[in-house]
Amino acid sequence: MVIWNPPDRDYDFLFNEVFDAIPSIEGLGFDEFDKESLSLLIEGWGTHSREVWLPINKIGDNEGLIFEDGKITMPRGFKEAYLRGVEEGWFATSCKPEHGGMGAPLFFQSVPWSEYGTSSCMALSVFPALSTGVYDVLSKHGSRDLVDYYAANLASGLWSGTMCLTEPHAGTDLGIISSRAVPENDGSYRISGTKIFITAGEHDMTENILHLVLAKAPGGPEGTKGISLFLVPKYLPSEWDGGAVSGLSKDLDSVENGVSCSGSEEKMGLHASPTCVMNFEESVGWLVGPLHRGMPLMFEMMNRERLATAMMGLGLGEISYQNALSWAKERRQGRDLTGIRDPNESADPILVHPDVRRMLLEAKVNNEGCRALATWTGILLDQMNSDDPDVSEPAKGLVALFTPIAKAHFTDLGCQTADTCMQVMGGAGYCSEYGVEQFYRDVRISKIWEGTNGIQALDLAGRKITQDFGKNLRYLMWPLSEFIENNKEDPDMDEFNKPLYQGVKGLQQLTLLMVSQGSTNPLFLASGATDYCRYFGNVLLAYMWAKMAKVSLARRGETFYDSKLASARFFFSRIFPETTSLAAKIQSGQAPLMEFTEEML
Amino acid sequence: MVIWNPPDRDYDFLFNEVFDAIPSIEGLGFDEFDKESLSLLIEGWGTHSREVWLPINKIGDNEGLIFEDGKITMPRGFKEAYLRGVEEGWFATSCKPEHGGMGAPLFFQSVPWSEYGTSSCMALSVFPALSTGVYDVLSKHGSRDLVDYYAANLASGLWSGTMCLTEPHAGTDLGIISSRAVPENDGSYRISGTKIFITAGEHDMTENILHLVLAKAPGGPEGTKGISLFLVPKYLPSEWDGGAVSGLSKDLDSVENGVSCSGSEEKMGLHASPTCVMNFEESVGWLVGPLHRGMPLMFEMMNRERLATAMMGLGLGEISYQNALSWAKERRQGRDLTGIRDPNESADPILVHPDVRRMLLEAKVNNEGCRALATWTGILLDQMNSDDPDVSEPAKGLVALFTPIAKAHFTDLGCQTADTCMQVMGGAGYCSEYGVEQFYRDVRISKIWEGTNGIQALDLAGRKITQDFGKNLRYLMWPLSEFIENNKEDPDMDEFNKPLYQGVKGLQQLTLLMVSQGSTNPLFLASGATDYCRYFGNVLLAYMWAKMAKVSLARRGETFYDSKLASARFFFSRIFPETTSLAAKIQSGQAPLMEFTEEML
Repeated sequence: MVIWNPPDRDYDFLFNEVFDAIPSIEGLGFDEFDKESLSLLIEGWGTHSREVWLPINKIGDNEGLIFEDGKITMPRGFKEAYLRGVEEGWFATSCKPEHGGMGAPLFFQSVPWSEYGTSSCMALSVFPALSTGVYDVLSKHGSRDLVDYYAANLASGLWSGTMCLTEPHAGTDLGIISSRAVPENDGSYRISGTKIFITAGEHDMTENILHLVLAKAPGGPEGTKGISLFLVPKYLPSEWDGGAVSGLSKDLDSVENGVSCSGSEEKMGLHASPTCVMNFEESVGWLVGPLHRGMPLMFEMMNRERLATAMMGLGLGEISYQNALSWAKERRQGRDLTGIRDPNESADPILVHPDVRRMLLEAKVNNEGCRALATWTGILLDQMNSDDPDVSEPAKGLVALFTPIAKAHFTDLGCQTADTCMQVMGGAGYCSEYGVEQFYRDVRISKIWEGTNGIQALDLAGRKITQDFGKNLRYLMWPLSEFIENNKEDPDMDEFNKPLYQGVKGLQQLTLLMVSQGSTNPLFLASGATDYCRYFGNVLLAYMWAKMAKVSLARRGETFYDSKLASARFFFSRIFPETTSLAAKIQSGQAPLMEFTEEML
Repeated sequence: MVIWNPPDRDYDFLFNEVFDAIPSIEGLGFDEFDKESLSLLIEGWGTHSREVWLPINKIGDNEGLIFEDGKITMPRGFKEAYLRGVEEGWFATSCKPEHGGMGAPLFFQSVPWSEYGTSSCMALSVFPALSTGVYDVLSKHGSRDLVDYYAANLASGLWSGTMCLTEPHAGTDLGIISSRAVPENDGSYRISGTKIFITAGEHDMTENILHLVLAKAPGGPEGTKGISLFLVPKYLPSEWDGGAVSGLSKDLDSVENGVSCSGSEEKMGLHASPTCVMNFEESVGWLVGPLHRGMPLMFEMMNRERLATAMMGLGLGEISYQNALSWAKERRQGRDLTGIRDPNESADPILVHPDVRRMLLEAKVNNEGCRALATWTGILLDQMNSDDPDVSEPAKGLVALFTPIAKAHFTDLGCQTADTCMQVMGGAGYCSEYGVEQFYRDVRISKIWEGTNGIQALDLAGRKITQDFGKNLRYLMWPLSEFIENNKEDPDMDEFNKPLYQGVKGLQQLTLLMVSQGSTNPLFLASGATDYCRYFGNVLLAYMWAKMAKVSLARRGETFYDSKLASARFFFSRIFPETTSLAAKIQSGQAPLMEFTEEML
């Protein structure tokens, strides 16, 4: 039986003690949102996801979806659970009040909401994550007409959303898509093409599904610069007869808008998440944003989904850890090496064994480090919207920098954690009865979704580092150097501050190497990108652990803070040393990769 | 559609050019076995496993087993494929001719047989692997009576075997098992108890199943020293009426010998491999080996199965690599960073991208390194049986040393490789259609089977290193130091020999640290064991790559050997550097693990 307790206490620590979330969003329009509101939201959502979502997670895995005659039926209990979330307003916390949303800061929905949603039922969490993503793009860039008609139902989740990018021959390489959009006289377009790997492309939980579709309209340039973004509903308003939609009834046509689902992939995990082949045949759609300029908009949504995917790594890492820990406390095998612990039992709990602790601590410490960085990133998402450029500019720079790192590093670590936790449970971990094997399968997609982790690393090394003459990186180095400097005189901080300093120095050297070599030799940069991204992830988590240690030093003697200090020590002695190897790999350059001809592979 | 081509060429290189297998087994009773015999066996088994086993692998995964009324029905095609192997003698190559076997060297069955069997159908490969394991124990330690009756049918695979160790409360900790054996007047015993996780405990492919069961007989000491080993058949000879079995007809009783299967685990992978709950109720069994001394015998079998499990890591790593490579050659996305490669296509094959190469090369190079070490180990298995102690003693020492390392390192790498290869294939890798996701699930059990990898690491660090005053290690260090010394003057070997030397020096220092600290502080040793084992694995693979490079230098200009040289370079620049981080982790000792109280986790 799977257990899971939402880590509310950790979020309280992070939002209020480490990052001062509420003061950080002063003046951003959240005047009535205070510590108590945040705590109520976190607790409420934790309770909802544990009570409503967690019980259906295994059912979804076991039963999977039924695909028949172009329709997908969700597993037992999913529709009910989803609609309860719609009813209670859990999907619209960050949407605008004018669209029925709560108008709460983005950091709630982006961080604890995402973590708890994915821990309790990753397959279901994807639906609202996509819908709010579509809502964001539409409400920012859509015409007034479209916003008026569609935004509120997307916000609540009554209607769901998708992003349609990939085609059979075009995944990472979107410049070569074939979908076409033909303009009509009434301002609408007719969209035709086939899209694959469309999550939530078809299902029976909502009455309508709104697709954001990338397609090429006539007159655009070749490649990604000639791609436009269209909103294509599964069903049109029943009253629509060309032209505007605002003001029309929300009643829907009974015939589909040329949108059909011709298949659903059989996958290793996430059996309750439809992965659809979608066909658009002269489907009515409306342009969102400027003509031929759809890619930047889709990337706005993509970046949000990348952070949501990062949280999947954490969410599944956390539930894996909790179950492995519980197992290690109960399961008795062998004896404590320093002497029998429980003489009345035939063996001691495996938690006494150093190697079991090593595994559990890798899981715990990676989870908590990622949660800290996620919390910081969540606050920055809100600060990006500030009118004050002194607030919004650094926030934008840091989010640009952190997005690929969080996506790649959190999901790499999430997969690693699910693996380690399965190992703690031995044979039981491999058996379906105990749940962790589902997490192991489900979380694996997170390294692929929204751009594989290799693509994230290239985005970081090839783009985010050099963007605007290195501005993103400077926004990080300023507070980070200041932190290191401020703690130089604190002897209690030495064990954290010194390795952090070394790591930052190493990062600066590697960055210089990547940029200087990369400017004339892109192969060098591309050959080291993945290891560089992981190095960078380690440095950011080191910063997080040093910050958490700083706060915790003041409250030594209390279990929670003692645990944070011990975890920081574990991080620096048992995880951070991997940076040394990563540096060596990066420095070896492209030769070891590129000297192979195709015949030599 | 899954592809797989048996790597016969690589085995030819390893057996004949790197290790001189045939001269190595001179005087061991294989006088008629030559290069050609080996090559015929390898080719023949490669063809059989590709043509007979590979086609049923996915069927087994999709259909799984049917468990009903205590009986297990194997998936479609399994029984036919298995019986064809029996008929063609593929399971008995290393069994004695007097038992109908071929009497070929162990290195064929332990290495290429195991690799090809697991690549083509890991679930099926486990049956003969267990049967020959039981055969070995029985033919060495069983009474003449039992051998005469059971050995031939075990050897051919007409009857299959199992090892019954684990009980619900006792897995790693076998000292606390509850199964009991009560002696009868006719020399037999009545065995009672429940065993779990029994692979192939029940199935419909053979008429009889022979269980090697650990149980406690009266009068023995507590713990593992009071455990005996029994042979318990599912069905007794129909003519048996107490006393001896030899000479009785092979016709079997129609009523089971108190042996029943009460369940089969639902698992993440290996759906065609039964994992049974077995109940023994006063089942007739016969002692194998001395009373109360069953553990060392079971460990003989266990050690063979550990090497077989190591080969599963390699087998699934290899087939994953081949499929990812094939995908990377076909799939077109993006352009070569140094200029368009295929101007007539809309994109270049992803093989041009450095990060895709990095992934493929990690897979390839780890596979080939493991294959080399496996080949060496296979030859040592035969040399262990030499009458000449100058041959058998070093062989025994090295096999003792290599067994936990190969089990842990090959399976860690196999899981890593399946993961990396899935990543190369992106979304397709996660979809069932393309096969790699099955390998990812199937191979995962190999880190758990036959003692988790954490247990292997403890066996290495806590036992194999110090055993007989460090003799095992000395048998490695002699040839290894000689190799390094001999190549010091060869400038072409510098790039391989120098890092190998550094790695060996590091290993010696870490070993000294582990042994000196470990003698008074077992927690230090246990805290570093896993990282030490991985460090050691890296050094052994470094030795293998240096040896392969040495041979290949002589034939530069030929694709096969150029590839080996480039692979050796990749190993030393992109894989071996992880030793630096591992050393730092080991040196950090037990404090970061042990300072956590239970409440702090």
